[in-house]
Amino acid sequence: MTPDPIFSDAVLPSWNEGVARSAILDFAHRVTTEGSPDFLPVAERIAVFDNDGTLWGEQPLYVQAKFALDRIKALAPSHPEWRTTQPFKGVLEGDMKAVAAMGEQGLAQIVAASHANNTTEEFETIVRDWIGSARHPTTQRLYTEMVFQPMRELLGFLRSQGFKTYIVSGGGVEFLRPWVERTYGVPPEQVVGSRIKVKYDVRDGRPVLARLPDVDLVDDGAGKPVGIHQVIGRRPVAAFGNSDGDFQMLEWTTSGPGARFGLIVHHTDAEREFAYDRASHSGRLARGLDEAAARRWIVVDMKRDWKVIYPPEP
Amino acid sequence: MTPDPIFSDAVLPSWNEGVARSAILDFAHRVTTEGSPDFLPVAERIAVFDNDGTLWGEQPLYVQAKFALDRIKALAPSHPEWRTTQPFKGVLEGDMKAVAAMGEQGLAQIVAASHANNTTEEFETIVRDWIGSARHPTTQRLYTEMVFQPMRELLGFLRSQGFKTYIVSGGGVEFLRPWVERTYGVPPEQVVGSRIKVKYDVRDGRPVLARLPDVDLVDDGAGKPVGIHQVIGRRPVAAFGNSDGDFQMLEWTTSGPGARFGLIVHHTDAEREFAYDRASHSGRLARGLDEAAARRWIVVDMKRDWKVIYPPEP
Repeated sequence: MTPDPIFSDAVLPSWNEGVARSAILDFAHRVTTEGSPDFLPVAERIAVFDNDGTLWGEQPLYVQAKFALDRIKALAPSHPEWRTTQPFKGVLEGDMKAVAAMGEQGLAQIVAASHANNTTEEFETIVRDWIGSARHPTTQRLYTEMVFQPMRELLGFLRSQGFKTYIVSGGGVEFLRPWVERTYGVPPEQVVGSRIKVKYDVRDGRPVLARLPDVDLVDDGAGKPVGIHQVIGRRPVAAFGNSDGDFQMLEWTTSGPGARFGLIVHHTDAEREFAYDRASHSGRLARGLDEAAARRWIVVDMKRDWKVIYPPEP
Repeated sequence: MTPDPIFSDAVLPSWNEGVARSAILDFAHRVTTEGSPDFLPVAERIAVFDNDGTLWGEQPLYVQAKFALDRIKALAPSHPEWRTTQPFKGVLEGDMKAVAAMGEQGLAQIVAASHANNTTEEFETIVRDWIGSARHPTTQRLYTEMVFQPMRELLGFLRSQGFKTYIVSGGGVEFLRPWVERTYGVPPEQVVGSRIKVKYDVRDGRPVLARLPDVDLVDDGAGKPVGIHQVIGRRPVAAFGNSDGDFQMLEWTTSGPGARFGLIVHHTDAEREFAYDRASHSGRLARGLDEAAARRWIVVDMKRDWKVIYPPEP
């Protein structure tokens, strides 16, 4: 018998040999082998991936938070009142302690001011322009060049095995859709994310979807299975995350019948990326680490399991 | 030059030759011909179809309304109070005037009682059981056998031309997902519809999505472009509907740049199906008829354009 070409060195080349890589290949082999008790029809091969911290970095600050801050600065000339009003004053003066002191309310104000009161087409252009030029504060690389190469390979590998790959992010769905197809090979209709409300309107005979300053779905934690249900409508069979915000997505995915796969990316590489888990302000991971073994979720040790972190410089 | 095989008699065999069939074939030819000014990459070939009145019948009563009434009857033994409380009393006694007298509030109560307070898995089973046995009051055929054969051919034809076909229904998304793949070839993740809220919960260690008696999205009228945006995230290039509840979906779809296609099914066949438009209680069509010509939307005259209405008896 010829070995399944899945088990070739050409597959997942940025992954070191080890438990994580083997578990991925073994799962793919089982669900794609006709006659295997774990065989899955192509239609049921749905895999969901968190974005922040799973497909790209989330340190020292969520990328979308950086987008929001930049957007406030760009809009400031039209809002002179922001110079004396928190949380905007803090944003403009770089006083993040003052912003943090405003708590949830301040965050909501920043999200509304930076994301809403435009049309979906206008916002898409704003995101495209920003993502095409904004750079990471320490590496000075474009954020879209700081995606995790091993995870890109994993997305492509699963698609080669008949999987439909979805992004299920706590980040905003409209912040992701304009660029994820080029970066991850995931089309806009396969992105689930947090969203604000939109309203259909006809302005001067031209229909638009107006973005309102009201949250419609927080696609994080227990909101992830809800977002998955609304958009995908079937339970995934494989889920990939990195923080406790992904816990319920992994739980929902891996509790179904038949073959299931759950994986957590553990950020252990202070040298090449960042090392954080239980105490981190973004991407906190505690319950996932505590329960992964009992739930048979694979924990990727980034430092040990990944040969490289980022794609080669273009 | 060999003619495009699109223009073969084997394509859309249940459609009579005429303006509607020609317009469909011409559109498909233009958007799939490389080098044509109207060529569309496969990724952008998104087509959206209304369900009630477009893919299957909606007379004398919406199918899902019949489902709700049957469900109330099935649950009545556990709800003795319904025997004396409207709108349930009216449903149980077949007194639809009493039900109608309750207006929107009565409808909301019927929807909540018949659709909510179960899990998504339980509801899926309920729908599967009902749709597998319920029959149309006049023809006595299963509802899934009373889909419109010409529209099924159209769905398949567009898919053969690289289109991704979506259902965008005012009906409940969870009422449709369990059976549309078999009936229309549309997978659950390509269904947009009205929905109630769901909440993630872990019961006795088993995760569930609980269906709550609160409306989350009414995917009808101006709600259709909203549902399309939430789930698909790009503007479709072709839209198919039959009532003014589809007006904004057609408007949104056909207002975009490049090649666009809008089509309205006009129910003109009292003999083989039903004839109704401006005065109908379900599937009212007035504005669409008034504005179709100016908007270059194709109006299908069911009696003239369709050779058959339903698939052959199995």
